[in-house]
Amino acid sequence: MSDREISENSPVEQSEVFSLAVDGMGGDGAPDVVVAGLAIAADRHPGMRVLLTGDEACLRPLLAKYPKAEAICTIWHTDAAIPMDMKPTAALRVRQSSMRLGMDAVASGRAKGVVSAGNSGAMLALAKIVVKTMPGISRPAMAAISPTVKGDVVMLDLGANVACDWRNLVEFAVMGEAFAKAVLGLPAPRIGLLNIGSEELKGDEKLRVASEALRESPLAAQFHGFIEGHDITAGTTDVVVTDGFTGNVALKTGEGALKMASSLLRQVFNRGIISKIGYLLVKPGLERMKEWLDPRRYNGAVFVGLNGVVVKSHGGTDAEGFAAAVDVAMDMVTHGFNDSIRERLTHMGALLSRQQAALEREPETTAS
Amino acid sequence: MSDREISENSPVEQSEVFSLAVDGMGGDGAPDVVVAGLAIAADRHPGMRVLLTGDEACLRPLLAKYPKAEAICTIWHTDAAIPMDMKPTAALRVRQSSMRLGMDAVASGRAKGVVSAGNSGAMLALAKIVVKTMPGISRPAMAAISPTVKGDVVMLDLGANVACDWRNLVEFAVMGEAFAKAVLGLPAPRIGLLNIGSEELKGDEKLRVASEALRESPLAAQFHGFIEGHDITAGTTDVVVTDGFTGNVALKTGEGALKMASSLLRQVFNRGIISKIGYLLVKPGLERMKEWLDPRRYNGAVFVGLNGVVVKSHGGTDAEGFAAAVDVAMDMVTHGFNDSIRERLTHMGALLSRQQAALEREPETTAS
Repeated sequence: MSDREISENSPVEQSEVFSLAVDGMGGDGAPDVVVAGLAIAADRHPGMRVLLTGDEACLRPLLAKYPKAEAICTIWHTDAAIPMDMKPTAALRVRQSSMRLGMDAVASGRAKGVVSAGNSGAMLALAKIVVKTMPGISRPAMAAISPTVKGDVVMLDLGANVACDWRNLVEFAVMGEAFAKAVLGLPAPRIGLLNIGSEELKGDEKLRVASEALRESPLAAQFHGFIEGHDITAGTTDVVVTDGFTGNVALKTGEGALKMASSLLRQVFNRGIISKIGYLLVKPGLERMKEWLDPRRYNGAVFVGLNGVVVKSHGGTDAEGFAAAVDVAMDMVTHGFNDSIRERLTHMGALLSRQQAALEREPETTAS
Repeated sequence: MSDREISENSPVEQSEVFSLAVDGMGGDGAPDVVVAGLAIAADRHPGMRVLLTGDEACLRPLLAKYPKAEAICTIWHTDAAIPMDMKPTAALRVRQSSMRLGMDAVASGRAKGVVSAGNSGAMLALAKIVVKTMPGISRPAMAAISPTVKGDVVMLDLGANVACDWRNLVEFAVMGEAFAKAVLGLPAPRIGLLNIGSEELKGDEKLRVASEALRESPLAAQFHGFIEGHDITAGTTDVVVTDGFTGNVALKTGEGALKMASSLLRQVFNRGIISKIGYLLVKPGLERMKEWLDPRRYNGAVFVGLNGVVVKSHGGTDAEGFAAAVDVAMDMVTHGFNDSIRERLTHMGALLSRQQAALEREPETTAS
């Protein structure tokens, strides 16, 4: 690719299909963290080819600093970028933003997925409009993996939809299951529906109907039923399905609790000379525990239910964290995440329609 | 009190007002844990007098084993008790259950509060029907305290109401503030409204209206605004207000995360002889941390918004935990928790009605 092509803002070579488009300008530490992250990820994904969108004048010298990233990246230049605090409606009007170009690349089939550490709201809005919702899915959701005592758990929705109906929840279960297969490599992930414990309240209508639908679906054998908040980190199931409000609060509450534990532990180890010696003796084990719980290892929330792989890195992550988000995107691209959802949906469409029809008939039945 | 009075199931001496009625038969470890817990609490609350409801034949020999409990307890005999797994509707039909007698004692003014480790759903249903909702409050809620890095935080609702409107949330704020004053002893507790971070979604209608109402209320100076899941353990505010579904999930998710941290830590300290020596060196600090996070210290969820103090102990707690629930009840009784809510409500009634009227007018305004 010649420099001339780039500065004319051409869509690069028409023939090449990239593994991923990467938003070079999204995130608190962009573009530095993005390029450094790509250099780390390059080692783990031989053959990965990246279409890097953003300001060439910034990106070019950075790529020169990271030869491993330079070797896999092609720049697609644009001056525009979406600020972290811009409203989604305003972001949609920025025509040639680095984030938008990444989405365009997926929509046109020039890249199989896109990764950005930019503005979440803007990203979801752009993904819905540019990459578009997958046929058969009512609403895309946000999914991510978290640590448990046993292994990792996929949780969704994490904030894309505040209010959900039973059908959304069933679709989340389908997408979460495909996610757990693609990214965690589980052959038959177990699915739980997040609920609360009080007997009186277990009958929340949408949860009850979603649970019934799942029990009659091809996912029945993998459906564990209702779970509670403490089951998330207990690893009771591999997938936790909930609405976007509850999921977002649960994710952040869990992270907060671990942060508190770590802050209290620091106080324990800093109590005096004897505690400090104790710390040195247990340090190797603590380091392994820290790695296990490292938020960077879990970086990379995925917008699922779109016609392409769209991965959101935490805006404040470092290069290691950004590389983890790239890992997630590559896992999804490589393991045919969307094909797996499509296949499942063809087997479930009839069931969902039946359930919907039954619910619509219900008031009449009661009245007669 | 003579044995004859008890066996005739009389309402004991008519003149005596008890600090608390205690359900002797509620909870997994009842009646043993209840009586042992009262013995612990007796030391901390000189002058406390308890009306202990339940099967005299079980309770009498237990009290003989715990003279400190025996010295403060009067038995109100009944054969009936509500099983832990009974549906609330069925529990309401059990006329003379030990839980019911405790509620009756509060309703008739014979006890200032009631504590039970029994069936939560039954307790909430009985409390609403027997103790009754406080005038000015739409719906009672469940509140409890949790640890943060800085101190303790009051969170509500924890499961009494799955769906809430803006007015419920404002009332929760009023009750949570009174709770933080009575139980945490804070002069001006700061209040946060739990929300999620995504810009796009911050506008959830009921949260927006509740936030506006609080900003115009006498609580304005103490209202911090919206907070997110991680703010709970960060101690950003002293009171966290949310609906019962989200609150229940957040509480249990946070507890689950701490349990995971503790389980991983155990693995770290058991890695080998050197780690075990390290453990011994940091043990005193760890013990203090453990005490800080001890779930028993936070036992005692309170049903707020009733005409009396109703405290729910965890069903599976031990004597120490049950004593903590008694502490909470005594704090609320002693510090005039309900008076504080009543006073606040008289200053807020007009504001709430205005807000309600404005919301009802809104569609017309838009239409014109």
